[in-house]
Amino acid sequence: MDYVEEGDRVVVRLDPGEQVLDSLATVREELDIENAFLTGIGAVDTVTLGHYDVDEQEYAEEEFTGQFEVTSFLGNVGPDKIHTHIQVADRDFESFGGHCSGARVSGTFEMVLTRGEMPLTHQLDERTGLDVFDLD
Amino acid sequence: MDYVEEGDRVVVRLDPGEQVLDSLATVREELDIENAFLTGIGAVDTVTLGHYDVDEQEYAEEEFTGQFEVTSFLGNVGPDKIHTHIQVADRDFESFGGHCSGARVSGTFEMVLTRGEMPLTHQLDERTGLDVFDLD
Amino acid sequence: MDYVEEGDRVVVRLDPGEQVLDSLATVREELDIENAFLTGIGAVDTVTLGHYDVDEQEYAEEEFTGQFEVTSFLGNVGPDKIHTHIQVADRDFESFGGHCSGARVSGTFEMVLTRGEMPLTHQLDERTGLDVFDLD
Repeated sequence: MDYVEEGDRVVVRLDPGEQVLDSLATVREELDIENAFLTGIGAVDTVTLGHYDVDEQEYAEEEFTGQFEVTSFLGNVGPDKIHTHIQVADRDFESFGGHCSGARVSGTFEMVLTRGEMPLTHQLDERTGLDVFDLD
Repeated sequence: MDYVEEGDRVVVRLDPGEQVLDSLATVREELDIENAFLTGIGAVDTVTLGHYDVDEQEYAEEEFTGQFEVTSFLGNVGPDKIHTHIQVADRDFESFGGHCSGARVSGTFEMVLTRGEMPLTHQLDERTGLDVFDLD
Repeated sequence: MDYVEEGDRVVVRLDPGEQVLDSLATVREELDIENAFLTGIGAVDTVTLGHYDVDEQEYAEEEFTGQFEVTSFLGNVGPDKIHTHIQVADRDFESFGGHCSGARVSGTFEMVLTRGEMPLTHQLDERTGLDVFDLD
């Protein structure tokens, strides 16, 4: 991993074998990030997708291995939660996606984080069981 | 819905049952937004997708109900038009998408809008029948 | 094509028949862009998708023609490389995607580029054969 901070923006490159979410947590710690929104593209060879069941209040997860282009990686970073969704495409350009519970870089992975000042903390929404933005 | 404005950025949280496009229109009105680009992720239980037929100059629309993760929500907000596209994934991580004609939040919905100053107005492109950016 | 620069942001509208990647190269040249991240949505009638085989170190490409909504277009612009991924959806809202090797606008195409100062140059990663961000 390598990254450069410039103004409110952090450009990140991940390398083969690195875990995307762990790397984000490392960047968050090293740069004291409390609020950032991100976009990314890249390629991964393992991705764990999640789908949240609002009624059951739990994630169903499934791991996929192969060679996948990441067509979109979007999300945000708070002090208490990193939340990302991912869309991938296989060799036949067929595409699937969901909540990102894990992803390992194969080729390269390119992200830009745009930082804010206000800590993006979370609070439990008891209706859904989700930790959601606490913006009050 | 709750939102916080900080600099040129507006962070928005939508809650279960809220309509994404109506909520965007409310934020636009309350903050006098005339120009913003946005990214978002979340979960919805109803989504109406559109597909524009350039030859017929009309949208074909279809409503889907279920539990969907929103893997990408991208678009922009002008004084005279809100234009967004959406990609969703179902319980089997199968994914589909298109022009977003409507979406209702199930779990949570997280957006960041980045504002500009120049009003992002639109003009009719008679070749396509679409209202497109008027950047002259 | 028309575009407007405002602060660190460039708003771009592409018109029917225009090539997305060629147009990005033109904007890069005319505005001396050495670093930008972008998001976009729109509609295309031709798209060439790529899938990189890390072992073979080469892209497999396939061209698709039809009427496609672009649900996400994400990427970045450096002085020596424009790198974008694209996700499209057809008339049945079925969706596919990958590395974007080319795309021709049908309806309209809307992008926002956010510029940085540091030249986003690339270096060869011999492990993968890819030109990746040189952030050192």
